[in-house]
Amino acid sequence: MNFYETDLAGIAHFSAYFRFMEEAEHALWRAAGLSIGAAEKTGGWPRVSAAFDYKSPLRFEDEFEVWVRVARITRRTLQYSFVMTMGETKIATGSTTVVCVSKAPDEPMKAIDLPAEILARFEVAPDSEA
Amino acid sequence: MNFYETDLAGIAHFSAYFRFMEEAEHALWRAAGLSIGAAEKTGGWPRVSAAFDYKSPLRFEDEFEVWVRVARITRRTLQYSFVMTMGETKIATGSTTVVCVSKAPDEPMKAIDLPAEILARFEVAPDSEA
Amino acid sequence: MNFYETDLAGIAHFSAYFRFMEEAEHALWRAAGLSIGAAEKTGGWPRVSAAFDYKSPLRFEDEFEVWVRVARITRRTLQYSFVMTMGETKIATGSTTVVCVSKAPDEPMKAIDLPAEILARFEVAPDSEA
Amino acid sequence: MNFYETDLAGIAHFSAYFRFMEEAEHALWRAAGLSIGAAEKTGGWPRVSAAFDYKSPLRFEDEFEVWVRVARITRRTLQYSFVMTMGETKIATGSTTVVCVSKAPDEPMKAIDLPAEILARFEVAPDSEA
Repeated sequence: MNFYETDLAGIAHFSAYFRFMEEAEHALWRAAGLSIGAAEKTGGWPRVSAAFDYKSPLRFEDEFEVWVRVARITRRTLQYSFVMTMGETKIATGSTTVVCVSKAPDEPMKAIDLPAEILARFEVAPDSEA
Repeated sequence: MNFYETDLAGIAHFSAYFRFMEEAEHALWRAAGLSIGAAEKTGGWPRVSAAFDYKSPLRFEDEFEVWVRVARITRRTLQYSFVMTMGETKIATGSTTVVCVSKAPDEPMKAIDLPAEILARFEVAPDSEA
Repeated sequence: MNFYETDLAGIAHFSAYFRFMEEAEHALWRAAGLSIGAAEKTGGWPRVSAAFDYKSPLRFEDEFEVWVRVARITRRTLQYSFVMTMGETKIATGSTTVVCVSKAPDEPMKAIDLPAEILARFEVAPDSEA
Repeated sequence: MNFYETDLAGIAHFSAYFRFMEEAEHALWRAAGLSIGAAEKTGGWPRVSAAFDYKSPLRFEDEFEVWVRVARITRRTLQYSFVMTMGETKIATGSTTVVCVSKAPDEPMKAIDLPAEILARFEVAPDSEA
């Protein structure tokens, strides 16, 4: 964890976890042979929701893992869940839901069906927590 | 909303909302005659959880309001809820729970009772959504 | 200054000043009847350089001023200078240079002349430091 | 480069480079067997200055290198210089100067001599640009 992610309480600021979440999500896309960057050209992927439960603080230079899995797929949304760990210690759990939207300049966003080529690359992972 | 809060999709990045949340929470403390800064000297106020549901995007230079209220008080925690609006449009709703912890260098954090002088300044607000 | 802008040294993180810089720059544009947002539709305004000299630290909840002036105008660039103060105390001085570029998707950025309607709104301010 | 580091112009926000700078600086400390975290316990290392010149934009998912070297050592300061590259392309050059200060709660910062154990680990690198 980086110095710029700390706050005056000496721990990682809670908002930094949402950036860790995004990094893990995009790494999952790359591992699936996809890129949010390419996907952005045809449609957008705004968030519907994002949440974290904080279990144990992160301190400067702590090294941690972010585990991400696809928790749920609907016609127009993907839900991910996250577990952050440092060795045996659970740091945090989180989740986020993204929706696929059509991309037309100066028009309101409109939810559309997940593109088939993206749907083909993901499946719901069994819950490793269960 | 500031340029540095946008992302390549042209809207406010979802992680920025958690900073807006914190600004509103600390403004509430100041309005109550308190300061997180002073409070930090005796104890810490880490997050137990933080969440947002996103309803409508924010674009560069949009001006919006963040409404915060104390939603729940327990012996050791404060829960806030947030509504972000832009005119008649609901932008997002959020919530966060903070816990009061003892502050001893190089010791693990330990939850303690909310200090009386802080408890005296807050009460649970009626739910304006209901 | 906000909590999320502090670091474990208990002061504003040095990278936050560059966001303060941007806020002041864009407020100057608005005061001149312009918007970077509108300007972005025809051309881009990337940075050529950005710098700060730090004089005195900012602490949580410190209230400060950011003074911005146009220091230099060339055919294709605008240079701003910044002074941050808290009462009589000088917090920092900074400068940044932006260049106007043509905006064509998937093409490299190319510097272009400053649009006349923008040039008409700015002039180089006398150096208040001198 | 991460999605959260982009802005609505579709490139890395200029303020993100100062976080890249810090990551490289701290990686250099670790490579020298030192930790800013441990060093923070006895003294602080605030910035005196920080600057970047931007040469070529970074786009989402671009992979780049940050080269850091110690450019100058004085009795109380360390100056680093940075070169960011992506393959053969120079992305940016930067520099920052940090000063060592005594750390006493509620007292103003005061510059002190660089600790010998830290001085022993660094030397000025030849300028690879020259």
